Amino acid sequence: MIRRRIHPETSVSARRTEAFTDGVFAIAATLLVLGLTDQSLGAVQTNDDLARGLLTLAHPIFSFVISFLILCVMWMTHVRQFEWIVRVDDTGMWLNNIRLLLVVLVPFTSSLNTSYDGLLLGRILLPINFFLAIVVGWLQWVWAVRSGAIVDLTPDDARRMGRAGLSAVVISAAAVALSPWIGSLAFLLFALDGLVTRWLRGSDAPASSATDGGVGGRG
Amino acid sequence: MIRRRIHPETSVSARRTEAFTDGVFAIAATLLVLGLTDQSLGAVQTNDDLARGLLTLAHPIFSFVISFLILCVMWMTHVRQFEWIVRVDDTGMWLNNIRLLLVVLVPFTSSLNTSYDGLLLGRILLPINFFLAIVVGWLQWVWAVRSGAIVDLTPDDARRMGRAGLSAVVISAAAVALSPWIGSLAFLLFALDGLVTRWLRGSDAPASSATDGGVGGRG
Amino acid sequence: MIRRRIHPETSVSARRTEAFTDGVFAIAATLLVLGLTDQSLGAVQTNDDLARGLLTLAHPIFSFVISFLILCVMWMTHVRQFEWIVRVDDTGMWLNNIRLLLVVLVPFTSSLNTSYDGLLLGRILLPINFFLAIVVGWLQWVWAVRSGAIVDLTPDDARRMGRAGLSAVVISAAAVALSPWIGSLAFLLFALDGLVTRWLRGSDAPASSATDGGVGGRG
Amino acid sequence: MIRRRIHPETSVSARRTEAFTDGVFAIAATLLVLGLTDQSLGAVQTNDDLARGLLTLAHPIFSFVISFLILCVMWMTHVRQFEWIVRVDDTGMWLNNIRLLLVVLVPFTSSLNTSYDGLLLGRILLPINFFLAIVVGWLQWVWAVRSGAIVDLTPDDARRMGRAGLSAVVISAAAVALSPWIGSLAFLLFALDGLVTRWLRGSDAPASSATDGGVGGRG
Repeated sequence: MIRRRIHPETSVSARRTEAFTDGVFAIAATLLVLGLTDQSLGAVQTNDDLARGLLTLAHPIFSFVISFLILCVMWMTHVRQFEWIVRVDDTGMWLNNIRLLLVVLVPFTSSLNTSYDGLLLGRILLPINFFLAIVVGWLQWVWAVRSGAIVDLTPDDARRMGRAGLSAVVISAAAVALSPWIGSLAFLLFALDGLVTRWLRGSDAPASSATDGGVGGRG
Repeated sequence: MIRRRIHPETSVSARRTEAFTDGVFAIAATLLVLGLTDQSLGAVQTNDDLARGLLTLAHPIFSFVISFLILCVMWMTHVRQFEWIVRVDDTGMWLNNIRLLLVVLVPFTSSLNTSYDGLLLGRILLPINFFLAIVVGWLQWVWAVRSGAIVDLTPDDARRMGRAGLSAVVISAAAVALSPWIGSLAFLLFALDGLVTRWLRGSDAPASSATDGGVGGRG
Repeated sequence: MIRRRIHPETSVSARRTEAFTDGVFAIAATLLVLGLTDQSLGAVQTNDDLARGLLTLAHPIFSFVISFLILCVMWMTHVRQFEWIVRVDDTGMWLNNIRLLLVVLVPFTSSLNTSYDGLLLGRILLPINFFLAIVVGWLQWVWAVRSGAIVDLTPDDARRMGRAGLSAVVISAAAVALSPWIGSLAFLLFALDGLVTRWLRGSDAPASSATDGGVGGRG
Repeated sequence: MIRRRIHPETSVSARRTEAFTDGVFAIAATLLVLGLTDQSLGAVQTNDDLARGLLTLAHPIFSFVISFLILCVMWMTHVRQFEWIVRVDDTGMWLNNIRLLLVVLVPFTSSLNTSYDGLLLGRILLPINFFLAIVVGWLQWVWAVRSGAIVDLTPDDARRMGRAGLSAVVISAAAVALSPWIGSLAFLLFALDGLVTRWLRGSDAPASSATDGGVGGRG
C-alpha cells in the first residue's frame, strides 16, 4: 500500500543520493581535523613545552571529538532511513540537500565554538546547527512516509521509526537549551539517545535485541 | 532502437563516472565552507562583537548558500540524466570531465564573487562559471541521445528531457545577463526552474505528478 | 550457524559503512599532502636553491609516504574484513566510527611528527595513533565474529583471520615501543607484516598462494 | 583460461579498490583549485585591477587545467582497466596504492610547477610525477594479465590493451624529456594519445568505432 504512491516518472533511484551524502559526511568529518592542525602550539623546545602546547589543545580536541561523533550519529540516522527508501523525488532530494547544507556548515560552527566558547553566541551556534540538521532529517522521514518512498516496511513500523527519530530532535533541542550554561558538555546528552528512543517508541521493542538503540531499533 | 548504437567495445559502464562525479560534487560543495572559516571576525571580546562579526559574514554566508544550492541543482541534473545512461564512451567521459572541471572551479569563482562583489568582473564570473557548466551538462545529454548511451527511454521522452534541460541553460544565461546589476540576487532566478521547464517541455506532463519539476519531470 | 545470530531488525546493510569508510580513508590520505604544500621552501632563485629546499623537505616527504602507506595497510585490513561482513548493528557501526575518528586524526599526529621529531612526545604520538586505530580494527573483527555479522566463513577460518589480524596489533605496538629511539624508522616494521601474520596463523596457509600476505591470507 | 589463475582465498572483490580510487582522484583533482584561491591578487580597486590580477593568474589557471585533465586521463585508464578486473590480491592492491600515492602528490608537484616554472627543476618534477604514476598504472595491467585478475577478455585482447596502455607511458616520457625546454606546454602531447595508441596497437581496431581512442579501444 505504501509502495504504490511514489511516481516512477518523477523520481530517481536513491543510490546516488546515498553516495553524495556519504561523500559530504566523510569530507565534513575529515575537515574538522584542519581545526587542529591550524592551531599554533607556540614556541616548542622541550617535551614539556609540547605537552603544555597539547594541553592548550584540550578544548579544540574535545570539540573535534564531539563534532565528529555527532556527525556519525546523524550519518547513522541517514543510513537507517535510507535502508528503506529506494527512490527519491524532487522534494526528497531537496530535503536531503538542505540536510547536507547544514552538515557542511558544521566545520564552521565548530570552529566558532572552539574560538569563542567564552561567549553565549559562540556556545549556542553549534548546537543550533546540529538541531536544525536533525529536524530536517526528521522531516525527510515524514516526507518518505507520506510520499510512498519507503518499501518493505509496514505503515506501523514506519510511524514507530518516525517516533524513534524524534529522540534526536528532543535531545538536540535540550542541548541547545543547556549549551549557554554548560557549553559543549550539553552534547553528552546524546549518550541518552538509546534511552529516549525506547521511551518514545513505547515498550514494543523485541526483547531479544540487546544492541538495540536509536532509530535503528525497529520492533 | 536507441539502445543498439553505443559500441560495447569502446565504452565502459557508467557506474564509476557516477562515483567520480558524486565525489567531485561532494568535495566542491564542502570546500565552499572553507571560504567561511577563513574569514577574519576581527577582535571579538563580547557577544555584541561576535554578532557584529557574523553580520559582516552575511554576504559570504549568502554566497555560500547560493553556490551550494546551485551545485545541488547541477548534481540533480546529472543524477536525472545518468538514471538513463548506462554506458559511456570516450566522448561521454570527456564531456563529463569538462563538466567536472567547471564544477571544481566554483569554490574559486565563488570566492572572487565574495571578495569583489563591488566590481562588474567580480559579479559576473561566478554566473558565467555556472552557465558554462550547465551548457556542457546539456551537451552531454545531446551526446547521450545521439550516441545511443541511453536505454529504456523512448526517443520522444529523451528529446523532451533535453528540452527540459534547456531550462537551466536559459535561466543561467539570464543570471549572467542580470548579475552586473543585481549581483548574486540573479541566482534567485533558479527558483523559476520548475516553471520554465514546464513551459519548454510543453503541456504534456502527466497531470498527476504534483512534485513535478526540473529535468526530472518525464511525461 | 554463524549466520543466524545478527538481528535483521537492528542492523543495516554494511554497504554504506564501506562507502563512508572509503571516503574517510581517501580524504585523510589525500589531506596528508597539504603538509607538503604548506612547507616554506625559503627564497628560491636558482635550481640549486630549489634542490636544497626540496632536500629540507626530505623528512616531511618521508613522513608523508610512511603515513600514506600505513593508512593503506589499515584500509586493506578493513576491506578484507568487510569482504565477509554483510550487515552491521549499532555496536559494529560505533566501532567503525571510532576507528575512523582515529584515521581522521592521522594528518594531525603526522604533522606533529614532522614538526617535533626531535622530541620524545613528537615521535611517539603518531605510532600511538596508528596502534589505537589498529586495535579498534581488531576489536571490530572480534565483534563481527561474536555478533554473527560474518557470512560464508567457517568459525575456524574466522578465528584464523582474527589471529592474522593480531599481526598488525603486535607490529604497531612494537613501533610505539621503538619510536622514541628510532622515530619514523620504526614504521619499517610494517614490512614484516606478512611474516608475522604467517607465524601467528600457524602453518596452515595453502602452499599455492604465492602472493599470500597479511590478514587476507585465508588458508 | 585466464580466469582460473587468481586465488579466491587471497584476493578480494575489486569493488572497494575502485571506490577508494575514485575518492582519491576526486579529492586530488578538487584540491588543485586551492592553488588558485590561495593566490594573492594584490590590491584590487577597479575592474581593471581585477582583470590584471586575473591575468597574472593565467599561468596557475593553465597549470590547474592541465593537471586536472591529465588526472582525468589517468582516471579513465584506471576505469578501462578495472572494467575487466573483478578481484585483486595483495600485489594488485599495493600497485594500486602506489599509483594513488603518486596521484596524491600531484597537487604538490603542480604547485611547484606553478611557483618555479622559471627553473629546470620546477618544470620537470610534475611531468616526472605523471610519468611514474602512468608507469605504475601500466605495471598494474601487466600484473592483472599475469595474475589472472582479468575476466571475460581473451589473452590477445588483454595484450593489445597493454600495448595501447604503453601509449601513455611513451607520451609522458616524451613530456618529461621536452619539459625543460617548453615547460607545461609539453603536456599538450597528451592530445596525441589516440594516435599513438592506434599506432602501438596495430591496425586491428574495428573500422566501425568512430569514437575509438586510448586504452579503451578494444578491437
